[in-house]
Amino acid sequence: MHKKHQIELSDLFNSRVERVRHILNTRKISNLLVLSDENIFYLTGFYGKNSNSLLLITAKKIYLLTNFLYLEHAKSSIDSKNIEIVLYKRDRFIKLIEILEGYYFKSVYIESRKISFKEGLNLKRMLSIKDIKLEVKDGIVEKLRTIKDKTEISIIKKACKLTDKSFERVLNYGAKNIENLSEIELAFYIENLMVKNKASGKSFDIISAFDKNSSMPHYSPQEITLKDGVVLLDFGCRYKNYCSDMTRTIFTKKNKISNEFKKIYDIVLEAQIRAINTCREGITCSSLDSVAREFIRSKGYGNNFGHGLGHGVGLEIHEEPVINAASKTVLKENMVITIEPGIYIENFGGVRIEDMLIVKKNGCEVLYNSRKDFFIAS
Amino acid sequence: MHKKHQIELSDLFNSRVERVRHILNTRKISNLLVLSDENIFYLTGFYGKNSNSLLLITAKKIYLLTNFLYLEHAKSSIDSKNIEIVLYKRDRFIKLIEILEGYYFKSVYIESRKISFKEGLNLKRMLSIKDIKLEVKDGIVEKLRTIKDKTEISIIKKACKLTDKSFERVLNYGAKNIENLSEIELAFYIENLMVKNKASGKSFDIISAFDKNSSMPHYSPQEITLKDGVVLLDFGCRYKNYCSDMTRTIFTKKNKISNEFKKIYDIVLEAQIRAINTCREGITCSSLDSVAREFIRSKGYGNNFGHGLGHGVGLEIHEEPVINAASKTVLKENMVITIEPGIYIENFGGVRIEDMLIVKKNGCEVLYNSRKDFFIAS
Repeated sequence: MHKKHQIELSDLFNSRVERVRHILNTRKISNLLVLSDENIFYLTGFYGKNSNSLLLITAKKIYLLTNFLYLEHAKSSIDSKNIEIVLYKRDRFIKLIEILEGYYFKSVYIESRKISFKEGLNLKRMLSIKDIKLEVKDGIVEKLRTIKDKTEISIIKKACKLTDKSFERVLNYGAKNIENLSEIELAFYIENLMVKNKASGKSFDIISAFDKNSSMPHYSPQEITLKDGVVLLDFGCRYKNYCSDMTRTIFTKKNKISNEFKKIYDIVLEAQIRAINTCREGITCSSLDSVAREFIRSKGYGNNFGHGLGHGVGLEIHEEPVINAASKTVLKENMVITIEPGIYIENFGGVRIEDMLIVKKNGCEVLYNSRKDFFIAS
Repeated sequence: MHKKHQIELSDLFNSRVERVRHILNTRKISNLLVLSDENIFYLTGFYGKNSNSLLLITAKKIYLLTNFLYLEHAKSSIDSKNIEIVLYKRDRFIKLIEILEGYYFKSVYIESRKISFKEGLNLKRMLSIKDIKLEVKDGIVEKLRTIKDKTEISIIKKACKLTDKSFERVLNYGAKNIENLSEIELAFYIENLMVKNKASGKSFDIISAFDKNSSMPHYSPQEITLKDGVVLLDFGCRYKNYCSDMTRTIFTKKNKISNEFKKIYDIVLEAQIRAINTCREGITCSSLDSVAREFIRSKGYGNNFGHGLGHGVGLEIHEEPVINAASKTVLKENMVITIEPGIYIENFGGVRIEDMLIVKKNGCEVLYNSRKDFFIAS
């Protein structure tokens, strides 16, 4: 890596930590124990997925606690001189408490979303022996992460471009070839395309649902081949640790079923476009959700759209903001979200259309170019 | 699915639930709230990975709580008449408490390993309003899962066969071709082979580490090509929801570095074989670990083997028993475990050799046939 580039990255991570410290300061919190691997990456540049690492931020110092398996990786990822890398053996909390003993903290403020109940209770017990109170303080880093900076946006755009390119290849592959694949094989074909296009992998288990299986929003592909010509594909890639997410429902046969599908397809598409046209800084997530939901309801399919309209995307495939009827979050410029209404009819099938977009001051920028009109693939 | 087969499967799941009930009865526990997706699959046949489903087992009834996204999947997976499938909207705990109100439970016993601290605290609060105590009761189903039954063993053997076959293809692919791939491309090539061999996917993110990167036990593949000819591959597949796990370290060049590597390779291999020869029902995991560890220590590399000797494998890639210096678990017939010693030298490289095996009364059965002698691939 070029030295100049390293310095810039290190500045980026340092500035993020400073923003966390500013929040802690404002709230009169003396420390924060960061447990989410994505939050740790966001603040340090070290991404140890499921590594059981800990990041302790205090007013003056930052400690990254990691184990033997990740030590070298952590050392090579972290450029900042401000972060002390500490090796723990077996129990990360024992080492944490050793460090805490050098401070006079009355409370330790921890993230509670990415630590199990088992471990949380255990840490609470261990801290109480030292007369330290465990306080839960969630969402500080997650909230910062909702607004993407320039570096992040350029990576996410690249991830979306790869996704577009891979979907284009699926369409070019053609109906006849798709009909020869099982759901599992098609899912794998897409993953393959994304990796060939330089993604580091898929961002979640690809949903490739044929025919009536498309009515199950979180379906797992099986060894089944296409019959009626309905193909729902929900997929995305990981590029430089950031995720993309896209859904298209395509058709390979013009037949009885496709007429029924065309009707619900057009409703879903119209609902999606209406939401996209409404999306801009300043509106609440619940009101964005209601634009699509009310439209679908007005067409008589209100009970067939059982999930939220969308979600934030970034280092995690699902992150804040949540876009559903209950979410009071106000959209802000440079949030990256999905808009993905759907209609699902048990034992018949379903349609979902999903784009990713960047929220702008006066609108939004859709990150995909893939076609989303109803058509019979040839 | 053939009807007879369905009945048998349903019997299998019912008998597992009965074994859980027997344990609850013995311990005078009135209920168990199962939160692990793998445990739910083990007891019902429904595998909703990250679906936020809940399984409540009481003396007479079993409730599976799931949401809109997984409802149809749950219905089609569960054959047993004894399980009532309940749909929840938004908050699974609200629906759970509605059900609990029909009982006079003073306590609810929950698994704490697969629920976040955030959610655990939330559930505790919600239960306390109804004067119900939350008690943590971990490991009941996990312990049953350590001993694999006939159905499981035949699936796992198939998974291992697929893994063997895929590795054979890597070797046949040849040194020249491997040298043309990046770490990411080689990892993907292996995944591709496993899926072509009818696996449903990889069982974890494949480690494909070239040259000195092999010193990082949990390394993530990069866009790097081979230089010195050292290739550490740790990979496995998922077949019918069960995992395989295998590691081989291979060499594509005979050069200065390979002589150094041959020395540590032979030590790791000897340590692994010694452990395999010791493995049988009745010995503790810690003593199995020490067989390999003491040998590596005697050769002067004690500080370079920083992880446990192995772990159980099944529905999860890492499950009980843990095989390390601290584990007092006694090995039993039909446990399926890995044995995977390694030596890692920072900035130089590492060697790990891993097999999966079934513990037997008087020994063990290694589940792989892939070669593991030191050789220069051609």
